[in-house]
Amino acid sequence: MNFPTKLVEDAVTEIAKLPGIGKKTAMRLALHLLKADELATVDLASSLLNLRTKTRYCQHCNHISETEVCSICGNFRRDQTVLCVVEDSRDVLAIEDTLQYNGLYHVLGGIISPMQGIGPEELNIPKLLERAGSDQIKEIILALSPTMEGDTTSFYLSKRLSEKGIKISTIARGVAIGGELEYTDAITLGRSIVTRTIYQ
Amino acid sequence: MNFPTKLVEDAVTEIAKLPGIGKKTAMRLALHLLKADELATVDLASSLLNLRTKTRYCQHCNHISETEVCSICGNFRRDQTVLCVVEDSRDVLAIEDTLQYNGLYHVLGGIISPMQGIGPEELNIPKLLERAGSDQIKEIILALSPTMEGDTTSFYLSKRLSEKGIKISTIARGVAIGGELEYTDAITLGRSIVTRTIYQ
Repeated sequence: MNFPTKLVEDAVTEIAKLPGIGKKTAMRLALHLLKADELATVDLASSLLNLRTKTRYCQHCNHISETEVCSICGNFRRDQTVLCVVEDSRDVLAIEDTLQYNGLYHVLGGIISPMQGIGPEELNIPKLLERAGSDQIKEIILALSPTMEGDTTSFYLSKRLSEKGIKISTIARGVAIGGELEYTDAITLGRSIVTRTIYQ
Repeated sequence: MNFPTKLVEDAVTEIAKLPGIGKKTAMRLALHLLKADELATVDLASSLLNLRTKTRYCQHCNHISETEVCSICGNFRRDQTVLCVVEDSRDVLAIEDTLQYNGLYHVLGGIISPMQGIGPEELNIPKLLERAGSDQIKEIILALSPTMEGDTTSFYLSKRLSEKGIKISTIARGVAIGGELEYTDAITLGRSIVTRTIYQ
């Protein structure tokens, strides 16, 4: 790629490090900023710096928070007996959006991935075991992605948590609501038959 | 959209102001920065600020430049008798990538768009007329996008430049090389027949 100046090259290189953004898109964004008002770039840069340097994490669940304890953990109208274990804060937001869950969360900060060198010790698992060991918690829902890594992590956690003598569940897998049966992949469809739920 | 904190909301709002980036992608990028090393965000923010505040424009052609006169205008091995008029610096880079052009450029900084309130006076047109009036220039190539606005701008420029008594041309429009005739839109295909070039 042909860069008009070193400044453009530096900015494009940095922007293109973001996930899902290639050099061409990065160049388009850089030239957009050059054309736009200077304040737009100043605001963008300072919001990113503020986000990265000032964001805190809930000391209980590790979810992004403005305070020491996040608004979910601090809400005593939520069910304090259920923990939903997720990979990252994005999953908390996704589950909150469904309005179907009223318990607490536990954010692992990743999933076990030997390929990327992420083992259980890199994740927020000790704190989970500690929380699971309290008398308060009656059920732990494992809500990890139905991928190889997610399943490995769920299996590992279920083993570690089984000693605690509490109920452990995992979110249902099956055909997506609104999806067409014929377009569902064979593994999901097969599993949805094996793990069918009783209708009446 | 549900934001965990004000810092995330501010960052997502700023990122989503970039063209082609919606709130969902912005959230993904913000959460990526939170997970990545702090230095990544610092480098990104400073490269954007440097780009926006330190970038200069060539005093002749208005192309992005590190110096008062850009490397193209300052290169005396380039043909000093031809000017290629483009909308913005991105077009200069695209034409340079073709390796088919060895003349100079003139960057308008936009195109005439009454819908967006951009008239000729908002663009770098006076300087173009001045350059066109010098004895040096023999031909001006209008290389604007084949859109309504691009055509309007080309028409306006050709009228204004016609007084100067120099050759004015526009880049060829027709079927794209490697494209399938049957998938070419009717207007382009029709025009490519009307403006056919003689083969022998």
